[in-house]
Amino acid sequence: MVPHLITALNGPINELEQRILESMPAIERWFRLEWMEHTPPFYTSVDVRNAGFKLAPVDTNLFPGGWNNLTEEMLPLAVQAAMAAIEKICPEAKNLLLIPEKHTRNTFYLQNVQRLVQIFTAAGLNVRLGTLDETITAPTQLELPDGGSLTLEPLLRTKRRLGLKDFDPCTILLNNDLSAGLPKVLENLHEQYLLPPLHAGWAVRRKSNHFQSYEEVAKKFAKLLGMDPWLINPMFAKCGKVNFQDGTGQECVQSHADALLGKIRRKYKEYGIQEKPFVIVKADAGTYGMGIMTVRDAKDLDELNRRAQARQNDQMLALTRHMRGMTIAITVLTVINAVLVGVTIWLTGR
Amino acid sequence: MVPHLITALNGPINELEQRILESMPAIERWFRLEWMEHTPPFYTSVDVRNAGFKLAPVDTNLFPGGWNNLTEEMLPLAVQAAMAAIEKICPEAKNLLLIPEKHTRNTFYLQNVQRLVQIFTAAGLNVRLGTLDETITAPTQLELPDGGSLTLEPLLRTKRRLGLKDFDPCTILLNNDLSAGLPKVLENLHEQYLLPPLHAGWAVRRKSNHFQSYEEVAKKFAKLLGMDPWLINPMFAKCGKVNFQDGTGQECVQSHADALLGKIRRKYKEYGIQEKPFVIVKADAGTYGMGIMTVRDAKDLDELNRRAQARQNDQMLALTRHMRGMTIAITVLTVINAVLVGVTIWLTGR
Repeated sequence: MVPHLITALNGPINELEQRILESMPAIERWFRLEWMEHTPPFYTSVDVRNAGFKLAPVDTNLFPGGWNNLTEEMLPLAVQAAMAAIEKICPEAKNLLLIPEKHTRNTFYLQNVQRLVQIFTAAGLNVRLGTLDETITAPTQLELPDGGSLTLEPLLRTKRRLGLKDFDPCTILLNNDLSAGLPKVLENLHEQYLLPPLHAGWAVRRKSNHFQSYEEVAKKFAKLLGMDPWLINPMFAKCGKVNFQDGTGQECVQSHADALLGKIRRKYKEYGIQEKPFVIVKADAGTYGMGIMTVRDAKDLDELNRRAQARQNDQMLALTRHMRGMTIAITVLTVINAVLVGVTIWLTGR
Repeated sequence: MVPHLITALNGPINELEQRILESMPAIERWFRLEWMEHTPPFYTSVDVRNAGFKLAPVDTNLFPGGWNNLTEEMLPLAVQAAMAAIEKICPEAKNLLLIPEKHTRNTFYLQNVQRLVQIFTAAGLNVRLGTLDETITAPTQLELPDGGSLTLEPLLRTKRRLGLKDFDPCTILLNNDLSAGLPKVLENLHEQYLLPPLHAGWAVRRKSNHFQSYEEVAKKFAKLLGMDPWLINPMFAKCGKVNFQDGTGQECVQSHADALLGKIRRKYKEYGIQEKPFVIVKADAGTYGMGIMTVRDAKDLDELNRRAQARQNDQMLALTRHMRGMTIAITVLTVINAVLVGVTIWLTGR
């Protein structure tokens, strides 16, 4: 039932795969027991990278797009999971208000929204779309490549509830990651279920917290299987405010990158891996791969800094603009030559 | 996600199907709310008959066989449902003891057991098979058509627990309908989960109770959809002890059959159905279609009675032996010319 990840790369992961397959009953039980103690997110997608010698998640999306990538065969499973999730969280639900991203002219994204509508309709809900885009003041139809369409409607906020014209939902599903901040219209909705909760948005959430929690989980899981957690865990470090333009906080990025590259080199030596390590520098909040850079040597950062200060490179400038004053998380994705092997989508009904 | 039932017969059911499809969100919500109030069985299969003008369940199995009939595509759904069911009922489960029917040389039945093992293994449990057959005193391997095999092991009963050699299960799953009575070895197991509970077995369960409960559910459901419950509900009546050999209780069967045939005729007239009604007489407990007879006219019962008393017909004798002294439920399956359109299997995780 686990999606089969296709990759051209092979290596120790094969041994690991074998161990995981053999331990399946123990692993499933472990999950069941963890779900008893922790509430999983309503829906999630995880970007997983496979270096052949290591396979790790590099990004967890709490407002997952990409549902359009589900195959037909996966659809019944998604519906079943949606039913279980609704039954657990809001069994009396009848109307679902889905709030997508604002930049909804992207065809793939629209197909993603269409698929979500399809899944939750099949799970037994009346689904309508409300937009945070205040320029949309009347129902607006968006055409889809398959000939279908989606209707975006303006939100109607009353003192205690959020809805649409003639549509009072008991549940609001966000497919908007709130990178732009917490919209006022979503605040103080205590009568309705808001999924995921507002603190799952990038206005509050931090990648560094996520990687720290994931590290703990990876350690527990690795202990269960008797394996090195490094094989499934990306190393990381965190700096505070960084501004590449005036150089604020840059020493921190440089020293952390340096230390991490050293740690990876030792791990590569331990496993006899003949690759050049790299680290990825990303903002601690935000999405869509914006402002991400790859560092193979801490000196690369000097270069970046010089260029940013000289403002000679438009692209880099955009990058530094995005990063200016942001907290930086360095994620060490020891996945050289890695291809993105798949975006695994979970709709966790448990 | 609902299995698609294929039938050569068409009629008012098409209108009904359309109404059901349109009401899907309302129906799903109705189910969710019902599941909040009622605990569904751990697993079930339902025999559904389609007369074209009427579609109704005629038998609900609480110890369903036939899992071997699941298509490959349905398997992931079964595993997901099994996971949800385990998570709800016994999340800490690790070992599952599966107790199949005794007459386990039937190849189809063995494949059914194999499929159950497969589903619950994939759901994360260690599964082993224990038999109620006391002649099996050592692990016994049964070969399967696909080259695989199943190992039946003798049960080990201690004062408080049931298990196998070196296998202490927290959960015991019965795939044996207990038609032969309640085995002592299954009594007083208060430390382990026994699924389904013993009172689901034919030693306790009665078809007439089931049809009565189903009738109530069908009425509620029909009200939700604004339809005649008769379209999904088999009429029924119940007699007490009946013995066809000495004639005890036969007047009851005759008068009930007569009354029911009359009721059906009125319904057929109402719907303009040009068919000859019939009733099915079955024992109130038990399974496998044993001792079932079709009655198109109450006078048929006289004939049966005469023949039983004359003991002229071996087959009929076997029938009457089975029926002697049993409570009879008359189920009126107004499904003339009906084919069995499908055995719908539910593994209800909710």
